[in-house]
Amino acid sequence: MTFDTDERRALVRITEDVQEAVDAAGVREGLALVAAMHITAAVWINDDEPGLHEDVMEWLDKLAPPSWKGPANEVARELSPDPGDYRHHGGGEDNGDAHLKNLLVHHQVIVPVTDGRLDLGPWQQVFYMEFDGRRRKRLVIKVLGE
Amino acid sequence: MTFDTDERRALVRITEDVQEAVDAAGVREGLALVAAMHITAAVWINDDEPGLHEDVMEWLDKLAPPSWKGPANEVARELSPDPGDYRHHGGGEDNGDAHLKNLLVHHQVIVPVTDGRLDLGPWQQVFYMEFDGRRRKRLVIKVLGE
Amino acid sequence: MTFDTDERRALVRITEDVQEAVDAAGVREGLALVAAMHITAAVWINDDEPGLHEDVMEWLDKLAPPSWKGPANEVARELSPDPGDYRHHGGGEDNGDAHLKNLLVHHQVIVPVTDGRLDLGPWQQVFYMEFDGRRRKRLVIKVLGE
Repeated sequence: MTFDTDERRALVRITEDVQEAVDAAGVREGLALVAAMHITAAVWINDDEPGLHEDVMEWLDKLAPPSWKGPANEVARELSPDPGDYRHHGGGEDNGDAHLKNLLVHHQVIVPVTDGRLDLGPWQQVFYMEFDGRRRKRLVIKVLGE
Repeated sequence: MTFDTDERRALVRITEDVQEAVDAAGVREGLALVAAMHITAAVWINDDEPGLHEDVMEWLDKLAPPSWKGPANEVARELSPDPGDYRHHGGGEDNGDAHLKNLLVHHQVIVPVTDGRLDLGPWQQVFYMEFDGRRRKRLVIKVLGE
Repeated sequence: MTFDTDERRALVRITEDVQEAVDAAGVREGLALVAAMHITAAVWINDDEPGLHEDVMEWLDKLAPPSWKGPANEVARELSPDPGDYRHHGGGEDNGDAHLKNLLVHHQVIVPVTDGRLDLGPWQQVFYMEFDGRRRKRLVIKVLGE
């Protein structure tokens, strides 16, 4: 799967796409690995509730502060890199915060497959989280089982 | 497996239950996926040491502050949502912090199985971490291999 | 695989070792689980860029502050345990922060294997992250597939 988000950050629900990959593989019992192939994106399983999504993005911006916009508050300022900007930006990048968010959220999940269906809880949806978009990104879905 | 904790938060050791699931599946070489089917709980592999467990819960309450009790200190106050309460609580919930803790700890682990045994290090134990209990919760254990 | 780092903390690139394990297993399509067998180390997939590595370690020391050196700033001081030191250190340890870093970074990753090769993105490398070295540590690589 590929993503090409207009915005720098985005949250895209992909539960149905993962189910389609499982259907296509014809697997009844097994696992589906869903992994971002990028180090500035993540895969997250949680609630499809817009208020929560806004809470999470605000909170991630405090814990892993972007330097392309000012720190949200004093805590974000102190969690920002001591040299004033990310050392990683020495090469011309501005996405240091996206690497840290990738670390916090994690770039992959494994979904169990039972009887041909994703074995998710009632509120669990799979999301692709983009922290540095506006260019083509890839996601791999690998289904294992029988 | 199901959990029905008396307290809002709980840490339950489940290493032995995962081993039993592997035994029941008769798998000698493979993987065991252990995943919470809820978005306010987690699965964690670490030390079975009560002091550490208390350290971790105190720390998670600072990083992902509950709004049903006051923030632990100034950092927790600044990491709390800017609108004063989690937007997620607009629907009557009070467990926004549990969603963030689920993100930090992660809702799943994979345990390698070698020669029929969980291939864990000497201090590694598997725990179910509940952040919003007092109702029935489910965990899925999926064993793959031969 | 075993590690015996001279320093307390270290970041070791292991992409090539994981590929060798896949080659040795003769697996063409499947998954490789890479997991630290310790609770004070982690496995991380990200960019092999020294500036970023320095950014990440500085940031982890703020979020999960060591007590064997003073807190980096006021935020690190407030994220330190309220009793003044980690309760976990009651048994003579000094690695409480390494347990928290293990939680944040996570102790394992799964790498998809396609056509006999690790199916990683162009910038994705696999790293072993040590937070409490200077003694022998073990890592397990488990390859599943056909």
